[in-house]
Amino acid sequence: MNQSWMSAPIPAPSIRRMEGARLRQEQLTKPRGSLGRLEELAIRLAGLQDREFPSVDRVRVVVFAGDHGVTAAGISAYPQSVTVEMIRNFSSGGAAISVLARNLGATLEVVDVGTIRDPGPLPGVVSCRAGAGTQDFRTQPAMTTESLRIAFRAGAEAAKRAVASGCDLFIGGEMGIGNSTSAAALASALTHKAPSLLAGPGTGLNAKGVARKVEVIEEALDHHQHSLNTPVEALLSLGGFEIAALIGAFIVSAQHRVPILVDGYIVSVAALVATRLRADLAPWLLFSHESAEPGHRVVLEALNGSALLDLGLRLGEASGSAVALPLLRLACTLHREMATFAEAGISEG
Amino acid sequence: MNQSWMSAPIPAPSIRRMEGARLRQEQLTKPRGSLGRLEELAIRLAGLQDREFPSVDRVRVVVFAGDHGVTAAGISAYPQSVTVEMIRNFSSGGAAISVLARNLGATLEVVDVGTIRDPGPLPGVVSCRAGAGTQDFRTQPAMTTESLRIAFRAGAEAAKRAVASGCDLFIGGEMGIGNSTSAAALASALTHKAPSLLAGPGTGLNAKGVARKVEVIEEALDHHQHSLNTPVEALLSLGGFEIAALIGAFIVSAQHRVPILVDGYIVSVAALVATRLRADLAPWLLFSHESAEPGHRVVLEALNGSALLDLGLRLGEASGSAVALPLLRLACTLHREMATFAEAGISEG
Repeated sequence: MNQSWMSAPIPAPSIRRMEGARLRQEQLTKPRGSLGRLEELAIRLAGLQDREFPSVDRVRVVVFAGDHGVTAAGISAYPQSVTVEMIRNFSSGGAAISVLARNLGATLEVVDVGTIRDPGPLPGVVSCRAGAGTQDFRTQPAMTTESLRIAFRAGAEAAKRAVASGCDLFIGGEMGIGNSTSAAALASALTHKAPSLLAGPGTGLNAKGVARKVEVIEEALDHHQHSLNTPVEALLSLGGFEIAALIGAFIVSAQHRVPILVDGYIVSVAALVATRLRADLAPWLLFSHESAEPGHRVVLEALNGSALLDLGLRLGEASGSAVALPLLRLACTLHREMATFAEAGISEG
Repeated sequence: MNQSWMSAPIPAPSIRRMEGARLRQEQLTKPRGSLGRLEELAIRLAGLQDREFPSVDRVRVVVFAGDHGVTAAGISAYPQSVTVEMIRNFSSGGAAISVLARNLGATLEVVDVGTIRDPGPLPGVVSCRAGAGTQDFRTQPAMTTESLRIAFRAGAEAAKRAVASGCDLFIGGEMGIGNSTSAAALASALTHKAPSLLAGPGTGLNAKGVARKVEVIEEALDHHQHSLNTPVEALLSLGGFEIAALIGAFIVSAQHRVPILVDGYIVSVAALVATRLRADLAPWLLFSHESAEPGHRVVLEALNGSALLDLGLRLGEASGSAVALPLLRLACTLHREMATFAEAGISEG
């Protein structure tokens, strides 16, 4: 992987801005610390955006869609055709993320990184296909080096478009029947935790289905045991196109000083792989919610991340990030608009 | 207490609407249950509002302010004068709840139920004073029957104004230096849990301050031990005007089919007292957040309530409810605007 965008520097958050924001929070008319994590968010966003008054008004949501050969193992509650059907649903505005993005005033872009059937041109959908789905990774590498390169680039280009549009925050989402199996396999390879701790019901498997999924992952990890030594090797062996695209998007987004609001389980696994490629990415990742998928907690711990919401969401599509967005916005608004003790003539206690 | 509004019936949620909403949720283009608590919220609001498509667009926030004689015992990090200073800050738009209400398009009303000094006429502030603060309840009843009646009525009238304005959701908040001591004493009297489980740092006491607060509450519970047999007796002995007003407001709001989004610790204690007066109020209470105040968990358990957010907030002023409002709004919007499987032509799995 010799891609220039991958090695470009990721800036550090501005300590000076964070100090300034912390000072301001102490002067606002409330007991110190009483806005809890909303204060932390404002301070952190000030440092990331290098602004006195951070803002997340202009938000780009990109949902990457790809298919997974491992669905042949019967590890999903839904048929593979649903990935393309959902791309149409994103495009026509009926999916959860379509509704959320519209109501939050965020722009939504869908990138087809490689579904089983090319859906053809659709409004709001960018085609950047790395293949017709990955290979069944029980017995073969999920993808070739060239496919991985295309998927990385699909994410990087999406982030560049987002940056060019002038966004304050990048939200990445995913759609891909079978991708919680790929994500669990990757997470197991990277964290060395047992697949049984990382595989869950996904879109709705029963206990027997989850047990089957664990077996499939164990089989794959065994098959690829000598090809999991680096994050790139793990992606080639077990990854998904949409997961690779998210990695490319996150790195480019951070390189351009655009903070990232991480969605649920699969996106967090992408974030984990990305931080193994680029440790300096970590400060740019904000975690929106803890998914109902049990492995998410393990992945968040590996990322040293603490999620804002815990609402039992497990939809994907960036829906959890979208739902958390108003918290970030209100944190910024409070930081900007609240009166200081001096302005309001109030005793500081 | 012979007040007609207190005994009027509180309607039950519509089972039929909830069933309809549950059915619709199953038909929306997502795995069943994958929107977690957002699905539950939409279903519950449909039942409460008796609407096919619930909505919380029109929201009234009322912050009740009152002072507390028990501050003489040195149980707050702030001087009592701050209550009136904050009323001015609410009025001039610089307080957290002012900023939040403005940005959320909610109307904000402040009711002075009895601060130590009448702040005089201020924009957006209604005067409905039950006294110049409560008495120091270590050695006397906090308030007279007549004061309690005025405070109840202040809340009831505020809810009637909210209902008349056509609101979809009622949010009650509080401001009153010393009121976490009154709330902890009330909660201890009602739940029979030790004051040490219910008293916390409030606006910012250190460990020594919290220990002092626990002693004060123990002293008060001992002094009033024979006058805590009913919720009304407990309020007369240990209550606050703003807590009583919240109770009146919640009962009247529910009587008019307007759901209530409960804020943090003090408002939850008001909700607890209110449900002891009127058990049929319980279905109307939605819990916005779990406060950093450690006793809040105990009170939520007593209410059988599960909070939506856990962000370490401990400001009061209805700020936690305001921050949770977007979640309710997005839950309603998803319920209304998402496509069904049939509409989108998607395989149901």
